[in-house]
Amino acid sequence: MLSPEEREIFARAMLNDVIAAVKDANCSPVIIATELYDSEDILVTIADNDLSGSLNEVLSQAAGPVLILMADLPLATGEAIRRLVNTKSDIAIVPGRGGGTNAIFVKEPTKFHVDYYGMSFSKHMQIVREAGLTCEVVDSFLLHTDIDEEDDLVELLTHGTGKSRKCLEDLGVTLSVAHGRVGVKRKDVYHQQS
Amino acid sequence: MLSPEEREIFARAMLNDVIAAVKDANCSPVIIATELYDSEDILVTIADNDLSGSLNEVLSQAAGPVLILMADLPLATGEAIRRLVNTKSDIAIVPGRGGGTNAIFVKEPTKFHVDYYGMSFSKHMQIVREAGLTCEVVDSFLLHTDIDEEDDLVELLTHGTGKSRKCLEDLGVTLSVAHGRVGVKRKDVYHQQS
Repeated sequence: MLSPEEREIFARAMLNDVIAAVKDANCSPVIIATELYDSEDILVTIADNDLSGSLNEVLSQAAGPVLILMADLPLATGEAIRRLVNTKSDIAIVPGRGGGTNAIFVKEPTKFHVDYYGMSFSKHMQIVREAGLTCEVVDSFLLHTDIDEEDDLVELLTHGTGKSRKCLEDLGVTLSVAHGRVGVKRKDVYHQQS
Repeated sequence: MLSPEEREIFARAMLNDVIAAVKDANCSPVIIATELYDSEDILVTIADNDLSGSLNEVLSQAAGPVLILMADLPLATGEAIRRLVNTKSDIAIVPGRGGGTNAIFVKEPTKFHVDYYGMSFSKHMQIVREAGLTCEVVDSFLLHTDIDEEDDLVELLTHGTGKSRKCLEDLGVTLSVAHGRVGVKRKDVYHQQS
């Protein structure tokens, strides 16, 4: 549905929505990127490791509580993030769709490590148990909804309020109902020369 | 993945999980069914109308607050339901995946009506606005996750704690990871004659 260039524009718009939500929750965002990323006002760390390795380095060196949020959560809101950072448990976690992990807040980062890919939610719950920590599973669909597949765009077009929804709409992607099932379609876009 | 008979057993298990959650939230369940349904201790109303028509009859005659929950929400918990019934707004609503509506709590049912199918969440928000009511969208993935497709079973096997998860497991349905993606598979079941 989207070209590689459009996917990059869309991914940046999602990241911007996540950053806006993080700021709204009074947290200080840091971007962990796998390649050079240009950001005017956000600290960017370029990782020379895989996702888990990079984040575990951050956790092992952190001086205070850490919130880990994936960048494909454009429905994130300050209110939803505050439910994590206000947890009474040692850790708060929001599972992603399909057995993954979308958000982790950990009060004492040196006591915890991450292990992404596959059924990471179950793996993280196991790590929590082994570390003897208490954990709250935060029941949020806004943070549970990661954007992986075309059908996930239905959620963004239904519930999104930020830049990534606008980005999709600007690309001509809209909701469609066929056979009682809601999906997305793309309007023909005419590239007119001016 | 499931035969028609197994689907019926599974659907009943999901309904039982929803009823248990409703009771845990101190609400009094009533089943609205489209055909005869046998229940020992729950009041059953057989509807001679479609889903919206049947529920609108209930709403128009209700003497007090009404909670409408779909029967395919096996992750429902008393805690999640209490977030709806404790709302400060006139109405609390949980969208379903794919533009639908999974749960509605309405304090004054005669002022509201439902309109299911298609993009019902947007329709319900429009009805709320037209009625001049206040509405809280409750951010719950446990109530957002309806079981429609095979992939939805991943959510039940990851987060479920009730009868419908046990039912699936008894049928030999388990999580599987292939190419980093989590799905479900069914073990070969040998029907031995005793």
